[in-house]
Formats: sequence, C-alpha cells, structure tokens
Amino acid sequence: MNLFLSSVSFILYLVAVCQASGTDIALDAKATLLHRIDSLNLLIYTCLLTLTVLTIWVFKHRRVSWLHETGLAVIYGLIVGAIIRYAGSTNQVTYINVHPAPETKYNLSVPPDMLRLHFPDKMQVSSGDAPVPNKTYAYSFRGEIVNVEQNEIDLKATFDPEIFFNIILPPIIFHAGYCLKRKYFFRNLGAILTFAMVGTALSALVIGALMYGCVQLMPESLATSFTFLDTLYFGALISPTDPLTVLAIFSQLKVDVNLYAMIFGESVLNDAVALVLSGAIQNYELRYSNDGGFEITAFLGAIGDFIGIFSLSLLVGALIGCLTALMTKFTHVREWPLLESALFVLTSYAAFLIAEVCELTGVVAVLFCGICQAHYTYNNLSSDSRNRTKQLFELLNFLAENFIFTYIGVSMFTFPKHHFDPWFIIAGFVTSTLGRAVNIYPLSFLLNLGRNPPIPMNFQHMLFFSGLRGAMSFALAIRNTVSEARQAMLTTTSLIVIATVVLQGGAATHALAYLRIPTGEGGNDESDALPYRDVRSLYQATDVAGSRGRMVVKWANGAKEVIMPWGLNGIEDTPRDRGDGVSGQKARLARLWGAVDSKLLKPLLTHARPPLTETLPAFLRPLARVLTTTHQYTQGDNSLRRTDSDSDLCIDDQHAVPTSIDPQLSINVRNGYGHV
Amino acid sequence: MNLFLSSVSFILYLVAVCQASGTDIALDAKATLLHRIDSLNLLIYTCLLTLTVLTIWVFKHRRVSWLHETGLAVIYGLIVGAIIRYAGSTNQVTYINVHPAPETKYNLSVPPDMLRLHFPDKMQVSSGDAPVPNKTYAYSFRGEIVNVEQNEIDLKATFDPEIFFNIILPPIIFHAGYCLKRKYFFRNLGAILTFAMVGTALSALVIGALMYGCVQLMPESLATSFTFLDTLYFGALISPTDPLTVLAIFSQLKVDVNLYAMIFGESVLNDAVALVLSGAIQNYELRYSNDGGFEITAFLGAIGDFIGIFSLSLLVGALIGCLTALMTKFTHVREWPLLESALFVLTSYAAFLIAEVCELTGVVAVLFCGICQAHYTYNNLSSDSRNRTKQLFELLNFLAENFIFTYIGVSMFTFPKHHFDPWFIIAGFVTSTLGRAVNIYPLSFLLNLGRNPPIPMNFQHMLFFSGLRGAMSFALAIRNTVSEARQAMLTTTSLIVIATVVLQGGAATHALAYLRIPTGEGGNDESDALPYRDVRSLYQATDVAGSRGRMVVKWANGAKEVIMPWGLNGIEDTPRDRGDGVSGQKARLARLWGAVDSKLLKPLLTHARPPLTETLPAFLRPLARVLTTTHQYTQGDNSLRRTDSDSDLCIDDQHAVPTSIDPQLSINVRNGYGHV
Repeated sequence: MNLFLSSVSFILYLVAVCQASGTDIALDAKATLLHRIDSLNLLIYTCLLTLTVLTIWVFKHRRVSWLHETGLAVIYGLIVGAIIRYAGSTNQVTYINVHPAPETKYNLSVPPDMLRLHFPDKMQVSSGDAPVPNKTYAYSFRGEIVNVEQNEIDLKATFDPEIFFNIILPPIIFHAGYCLKRKYFFRNLGAILTFAMVGTALSALVIGALMYGCVQLMPESLATSFTFLDTLYFGALISPTDPLTVLAIFSQLKVDVNLYAMIFGESVLNDAVALVLSGAIQNYELRYSNDGGFEITAFLGAIGDFIGIFSLSLLVGALIGCLTALMTKFTHVREWPLLESALFVLTSYAAFLIAEVCELTGVVAVLFCGICQAHYTYNNLSSDSRNRTKQLFELLNFLAENFIFTYIGVSMFTFPKHHFDPWFIIAGFVTSTLGRAVNIYPLSFLLNLGRNPPIPMNFQHMLFFSGLRGAMSFALAIRNTVSEARQAMLTTTSLIVIATVVLQGGAATHALAYLRIPTGEGGNDESDALPYRDVRSLYQATDVAGSRGRMVVKWANGAKEVIMPWGLNGIEDTPRDRGDGVSGQKARLARLWGAVDSKLLKPLLTHARPPLTETLPAFLRPLARVLTTTHQYTQGDNSLRRTDSDSDLCIDDQHAVPTSIDPQLSINVRNGYGHV
Repeated sequence: MNLFLSSVSFILYLVAVCQASGTDIALDAKATLLHRIDSLNLLIYTCLLTLTVLTIWVFKHRRVSWLHETGLAVIYGLIVGAIIRYAGSTNQVTYINVHPAPETKYNLSVPPDMLRLHFPDKMQVSSGDAPVPNKTYAYSFRGEIVNVEQNEIDLKATFDPEIFFNIILPPIIFHAGYCLKRKYFFRNLGAILTFAMVGTALSALVIGALMYGCVQLMPESLATSFTFLDTLYFGALISPTDPLTVLAIFSQLKVDVNLYAMIFGESVLNDAVALVLSGAIQNYELRYSNDGGFEITAFLGAIGDFIGIFSLSLLVGALIGCLTALMTKFTHVREWPLLESALFVLTSYAAFLIAEVCELTGVVAVLFCGICQAHYTYNNLSSDSRNRTKQLFELLNFLAENFIFTYIGVSMFTFPKHHFDPWFIIAGFVTSTLGRAVNIYPLSFLLNLGRNPPIPMNFQHMLFFSGLRGAMSFALAIRNTVSEARQAMLTTTSLIVIATVVLQGGAATHALAYLRIPTGEGGNDESDALPYRDVRSLYQATDVAGSRGRMVVKWANGAKEVIMPWGLNGIEDTPRDRGDGVSGQKARLARLWGAVDSKLLKPLLTHARPPLTETLPAFLRPLARVLTTTHQYTQGDNSLRRTDSDSDLCIDDQHAVPTSIDPQLSINVRNGYGHV
C-alpha cells in the first residue's frame, strides 16, 4: 500500500510544491495531500469491497459454493496488494535526526509526548530564492524505531492495528453474540464451553510447546530470538477459529443444527478466550521477561489475570446488557423505534468503552453484552427496532468481516514488516493442525463419557475440519510486529488464515459429503445472504413436513432418503430429552440456571411471564410488584408466546421446574409455558 | 475536556509509572493510558447521547414540544462541559525543544514529516536508580505552534475538526439528500434553488460587509486582525441554516408541505453552497493574501473555483448514484438484500471518497449522490433493502446530529481556543439576523413576480424565522482556529448556534401560531420519530378526508375550521397547476428536465416505463433494447405504479409531454402514466 501510494503522492506532492509560493502554502498542500492519500487508501478498500459484493452476487447467482465471500475478499486483496507492491517504489516520508536543545530540563524517564522544532532555524534548506521564515512546529510521539539503520520509516500508509480492536472487531463480535440466541446453543453449552475454554487453552499450550521444539531444531538465527513465551503467544493467537465459510455452507445446505451450534458457539467464545489469554501471556512477558525461565508466581499471576479479566469483562458486558433490558422494559421508548434503536446501539457501544476504560477487554464485554441483549432486551424491543438492530449489525458485520479479509490479502504484499521463514511457516501449519486435533478429539472423548447421544465420529471430524483461522488471529498477530520473531508470526498467521479460508473453506461441501453428514433440503436461496438465520433443526424440519420419524435429506453430492439416528419426532416429545438429556452434575447446573433465568431474570428484565410476584418469596412481594409491569399481569399466555421470541431456552419445561419450589408455583409456571 | 481528562489521566499515569520497572514498560503503560483516555472521552459522549435519548423519550411521552432533541443535546453538552472545565486543571503533556543534529542534510523547504530522537542520550533524566537505556523514537508532524510562549500544548483531548467533515457530516448530508425524494421539493425547486444558491451568497456578502464595518468601528485590538476576507469567510460559514428543530415541529403539526419542502430543501442545499463558498474564499485568501486588497483576477478565480468545484462535485455524486442505479438494475443483486444494501452503502461512501481524492468537496458529492440514489436506485431496490438503507441512514443521521450538538455544547467550555469578544458576538448576532432577512424578503419578492400563487407573507416570516444555524456552521468555524480572528469567529458561531437551536427552536410552535400558519391534525405520534416522513400535503389530507375545498385545520394554539387560500382539490385537478404552475422560461426548463427524466433517465436507470425502446429515436433502438429489461417490457402499468415509488416527480403529466416529440410517442407516454 505504502509504496504505491507513495509514488502517487510523490507526484501529487511535487505538483503541489511547485505551485506553492511559501512554506505555509506548501504545508497546507502537504496536509491536503495526506488527506487525499488517506482517502485514496480507503477508496481502494471500498472499491475492493464493492467488487467483492458484485462477484459474490455472480457466484450466488450461478450457485458456486466452493468460494465464500471472505475467501474472495482475500483473493482480491492479494491481487491488488501485489499490483500495489510491484507498481511503484518511491517513498516520500522525510525525516531528520534531532537532539534536545542545550538548555532543556526534563525530569521523566519516558520520552516526551511532544517535540518542538524551530524550523528551518540555521538549517540549510533548498527553497529557491525566497527565505523560509522561522516557525515552531509540533511533533507528537509515534513509537520506538527498532531498526535504526533502515532508511525507510514505515509507520504510515497502513492502518493502525488498534483499528481492528476498536473499530472492526467489536461489531463482528457483537453480531456473533447477538445471533447466538438459539436454543441449540444452550443445549450444547457444555460441549461449546469445553471446546472454547479448555480446548483453546490446551491448543495454545500444545502449539506453543511444539513450536518451541521446532524453533530449537531450526538451524536459523530465528531460533535464538524466540522465547517459550513467544511461541506460547503464537499458540494463543493461532488457536481461535473463524469458520465463517463453513457455517455459510452449513446454513445453505441445512446441516444439523446441533453441529452448527457447536461450531458457531465455539468459534464465538474462543475468540474471546484467545484474546484474553494472549493478553495474560503478554502481561506475564512484560513483568517477567528478564530471564525467560518459568516463575510460579508469575504463572499464577497470569492465570489470575486471565480469569479476572475474562470474568470482569463478562460481567461488565452482561450488566450493561441487563441495564438496557431494564431501560427498555420500564420506559415506553419502544413507541419511538428510532430512539429505541439509538439507545440499543449506544448502550452496546458503552459496554465496549467501559471495559476499555477499566483496562478490561472491550471485545469480550461486547460479546456478552450482545448475548444478553439478544436474550433479554430483544424481547422488549418493538418489531421495528428488532429488525433495524438485526439488519444494522448484520450489515456492519458483513462490511467489517470483508474489510478485514481484504486487508489480510492486501497487507500480505504491502505490510512492510513481514518476515518469511519457510521452516517457521511449515512448522506453523503443522502445529496449528495438531493443536486443532488436540482440542477436538480428546475433549470429544471426554464429553462423550457424559453425553447422550455422543458426538458421532463424523461430527468430530467436521469440528476438526472447521478449524479455519480468521480475523482474531490476524488482528492479534499484527498488533505487535516489533521483533523479528513477531514478524515471522505475522507472516505465518497471515498465510494460515489465507490457506484455511480459501482452501479449507472451499472444500467444506466435499468434506460434508465425504464425512456423510446429512444435509436438509437446500433449495431455499433467499436465506443465503443471512448466514446465521433460518437454520432450522432437522427435528423442526421434519415436524413441519409432517413426516415423523423419517425425512428426506440430501447429501451434498446427491439426494437420498435416510432415517436420522437421533430423535426425529416433534419438538414437544420425549426424544428431544434424549437429544440433550444430559445426566449428572452438568445437567443439574444447567437446570438450575434455566430455573433462575425463567423465574427471576426473564420476568425481571423482560415482559415474560410468570411475573415476579408469583415466583419470588412472599417477603419480597412489594419489590416484585414494583418490578412487574401491568403488561406482565394482563398479557394472556398465547399473545405473549408470540412476542416473546426467546422462549426457546435451553431447558425443557419438565426440567425447568425444580423440585424444591412449592407445587403451587410449579403449576403456575407450567401454565405459563404450557403452549411450547 | 482536556483539563478533566488530564487530571484523571495524570493520576492514572502516576500509578502506571510507579508500577513500571523500565522505560519500555512505562511507555507501554503510557500507550495504555492514552487509549483509556480516548475511550473515556468517547464514553462521556456516549453517555451524554444515551441521556439525551432517554430525556427525549420523556419529553415525547409528556408531549413537551418546546425543546427538540438537538437543543437538549446542546444543553446537556454545556452542563457536562462546565463540569469538566471546573473539575480539574492539570495537564500532563510533556514536551522538549529540539534542534536538528549537527550533521543533518535536508533539502526541502517544508518541515520534515518525522523526527528521530535518541533518548535519553546525554539528557539528565530522573529515573531513580536504573539507568534508562538509549533508544531511538519516532515523532510525527502535528502542526505549527503559533503561540510559542503558551506553555500548554493543547493539540490533544478534543476531536480533530476534520472528523466532522469526514465522519459526522457525510451521513447527515447523505440522509438529507436521500430524504429529499418529495415531489414538493421538485415543485418548489425554483424557490429552493434561489434561496439556497443566490440567497446564501447574498447573505454571506451582506454579513461579511456589515461585519467588516462593525469590526472597523470597534475600539479593540481585534479590529486590526480582521481582513475583509476574514469577515467574508464568517459570512459564508454563518449563512447555512439547519432548521432541524423547526422541521420536527412542522412534521409533528403537519404544517403545509410546500413550506416544509422549501425550508428543508433550502437548508440541505445551502450547506453544500456554504461549504464550497468558504473553500473558494480560503483559496482566494491563500493565493492573494499579500495585501488584502481586491484583485479582479483573484476574484474571478474564486468564482471559478466555486462554480467548478460545486458542479464537479455534483457531477461525481450524481454519476456514482446513477452507476449504482445501473448496477442494481442490471444485476439480480436484489435477490440478496444484504449484498444489495452493502453495495448501496459502499458506492455512496465511494462517492465521498472519490470527490475527496479529486480535491473536490466530498460532502457535496454525497448530497447529490443521495438525491440520485433516492430518485433512481431506490426504485430498483428490494423492499428489504429500502427499509434497511432508510433505517440505517436515519439512525446514523440521528446519532451524528446529536453527537455534533452535544459536542458544540461541551466544546463551548473545554475547547481551548475560544476568544470571547462581546462586541464581535453582538455584531455577529445582529448581522446574521440581517443576513437571513436579506436572503428571504427581497428574493421572495422577486420570486413572487413570477410565481402563482405567491409565497404569502406569513410563509416568508416563517422562512426567516427558520434560519437556525447548526452543524455545518460549527464545523466550518472549528476547522481553523489559528488566529485570534478565527477564534472569535468560532466563539460567536458556537453561541449563535446554541442560541438559535435552543431559543428559536423552542419558540417555533408559538411562531407558527403567531404567524397564523395553518397546521393539520397533529395527533399521530408514531410519526414523530421519523421527522422527514409522513408529512402529507394539505391537499392530500383533504383528499383523504374526502372534503374537497374545505378542511379542518388546527392552529398551534387551538382548533379552527378554515378554508385554505390555495387549491384544495384532489391531486389530479387543475388547482395543483396553479399551486406551482409557474409560467415562463423556468417552467419550460423544468418541463424539459421532467421530460428527459421520465423518458430517458428513469427508463435507463430503473425499471420504470415507458421502456427506452419506445422513447429513443429509431436509430438507437438496438442500444435501447440492450438497456431495457424484460421486467420493463412485461410489467403491467398498474403493478409498476406500485413498485415505482418515484412517480411523484416534479412535473404534471399533462406538461410532461413536450410538444416537439412526435405524437405517437406522446401517446405511449400518456398510456404509461395514465394512472397517476
């Protein structure tokens, strides 16, 4: 990017300078020029995205499924990046070395924020005839220059990596959280949490250890520049998955929703886990990097960091989500959908900002804020606001996602801090695959011990296959490219992302067919553009079709009629209990949560029945009365059923009534939910 | 802002520094700190906006109409600004003076982009025991320091003014253009263009001249620092109107749509005119500021600038709009609404960027792009995309508008470059009122010579009264605050904006009543949140009510039954021709445009009938056949009528058929539009 822009800008700049008759005008021209370069920069990405959108349309129109929009964005990015790279070579960033003025007093150990340069002072400048007037200019701190010998100062002309964490990722992650509102997510919560929390940490550790071994074996100078923490950081950043492509195909082919929920849920949560994990590793590194050895207190500190930051961020996000739910419940702001939508957007953004101000992780807060907004606030919104917020975040998500993949492509050629090390790249590919395997297979085995029905082997293979890497890995890798080790990581991560998104994503349909994973009737093209909606359960599909116990499913390579191994009856029937009727401790926890959610949180935060007056103990009735809206009292069950889109909660109704609550209440609850 | 943040940040910073054990970590902590301050900054505005939204809800709920949301945003901004101002006072930005290194070679007359500082080198720093390692740091150019004596460097902690032009204004202006799709706008196009183009220029000139006179009379040091160009610039920036508040009340009370269209249309266009005008004045100033006298070539150059930049920007915007229309017409991207919406947003943003890259005015391009998108592309969109794009830009507009008004309030106290000069402020208030009067009354008089029916006197008073100043004036004023003159302008502009928005906006209802401007039945609260929709013509209202010639209208202070002075019959009847049946040259031009639009542009760019094959001359038939979709051939007139939301064009059907086109074609056209 910078080279092409530089050459363009150099010409523009010369033109501007030639026209100028004084320093002021030249400076003004320069400011204009910089603005034009920024605009050009953005314009290139805008045009690339437009091109992607149009090509995607052609692909969808011609029913091409071997390349997803993100893969396409990467490829277009690579092409344009290569053109930019080899089309120009001038660099116009000028610099001089400076010393502090002799009389300077300064009493801090960090470099100053600002420098003041008296220019041209006594410097020789080539300004033709006119003398350049002396003026004082301000310069602001940018960062350390590591390679002082390098003539090119390349801090410009690519985006600041922090843009990803503050602008690009939040809408993507929020959208993911906002779309998680599926009962299938809650049904498979155990598996999802295991894969996302334990699995990601395990994968990071395995990749880190293996990479450290590989690096030690390499006969390169790189070996010495890698500490174990570096490779562990690499493990953490390459572990989160981003199976957009696979999910789009799942949605298109109507693959089993439980599998869909597991893959989607895991990918959403492991982004958050990896982000916090890499932060903890960096904190450890910052504080204890003196000898690189293992320090037990530091290690415990890092674990504390991880747990503390993760849970506090979660809390901030969830609280803001609940606060929004309360605001939308107890005000009549829903009568003005524009105000309501604005409130929704503002509070969600506030969750991000509050977490950042508190030195927590904004992205994690925004994820859990999104989940709460979907679970509670969404039910209070007017239908106009529901549509508007869904569509808004869908669009933002689409643009942000495609932008980041385009940028990955372009930056492969134009980002100045790549370091290609073939051995490291090969090792990266191998270990990241192994890391994914270590995440899925052993944990699936353990999960299957307590799970009925177990996760079948072909589902496990598909979970393994869905380990594409994406936006989060890239954003973490590009965040810090100071050392050669980090640059090698960035290059490897970029290549892994590109390869998995393009190749693995393209092969997803074939993988489905090869693994003989059943797919539903895939004819409904209208839902393609809405990848996370309209994924119906095979159960439901059967139910709708009215053919209980049997259904027509289409393999990815042809149509067949099969009988599903799992319960295929209607949604109210007992086979669903088998579908996720998990025994033991976990199920009890889930039931407890379900009870708290449906008895306390939902009546408190939404207009859902039963009202708090019925579920809270007698001594809290006055409080309960305040917190219950007339809507909640008067609303009939049936009409409520329709407005409460969140009734599809994790827990079956039979289980939702804990035995410890008095029978009278249980009956009320049963009545309240009798129409599921 | 900066003071409060500074004090907070200073404490945070000390904490961070105390924990640090080396320069790297201290620097890292500093970067974290700066990020937290940025987040805190944004959080304050987010909370303010949330508060505004909630209060607005209360106001709407209690039917308070004397304070609009923008007025509220300003007031909240003022309060928080005052709190920030008087709550803290430390400033932690550190700086040192530097000299170039002795061996430096540098051969440009502008200051370098980057400085490299070797720190701490031989400087004395207070770092406790540990020696601070020498490192090289990069510093990037920020700008000129005018007042070198001033210790405080205040480039930070408020937003870069360019944010307004690149982020805040484009969605506002685009939304305005996208909402202009009203036949009443086109009906009153003559008056709107006169007020916006001639009126704004006239107003700028009058205000500039009067202010120059006032400034000369002032016994202040300020007098010498103002050139005529400065006051002219002030005239240009204070001329554009922003009658949001008034329009919201119009919409609520269902005021006559012609008046609404005139005020809204003028305010949209005069923003664009003022922006280009101020740019032209600045260009003039830059090139010919040596003696401040009047140079005829420079003056002609400035006029050339104005016309050239305005029309080229218009062209860029319109072309991109038409290109989008073609893309949406000839692809089936409408089958995937998400892709379609993304395409729409991307191309609209591209219009802005292309204009900026070409050194034109992006905001103007975006305005005309919005008008074209509404006029052509909108008809090709799927209903999902229509809703989505409307709601998206409505929301963006709402947030951007309220943000800018909040910022106006906050910056009144926290922006460091205010210069309060009571005489200049008084003169500003008086001349800006006079400028508005010079815009409206003489031009209305001239317009009424050729207009039938004329603009009644009470409408003229209302037009005068609607001259609130807003976002564009403020953005232009804050763009450049280098000299004392410019700072005085910023202060005066801020005060004028605040006063007009809060006081004049609050008095709008009373003004309507006082001027006896009839209002419709104002009971429909649902439409309040959508200020630019649902404004129905009084004609239509009558038509719907079925009571021709008479209607019940409600004065703002009570209900009365009156007979409208203008034609009150159905929309197809001749009285509408009287309503805007302008005679003479202008009407012929409008008719010509209407013919070109309905015969050539609409059939080319949308699926509207008649198809080009019927309207183009015979030798162009092959081309016409390529450019006509099967949709256009096969679509029946009635069904088309419904999908083509843009049939409410400026020109009556009887007039839309110029006599010069052969009768056969005319008949076809008549058939195509026979159902209006």
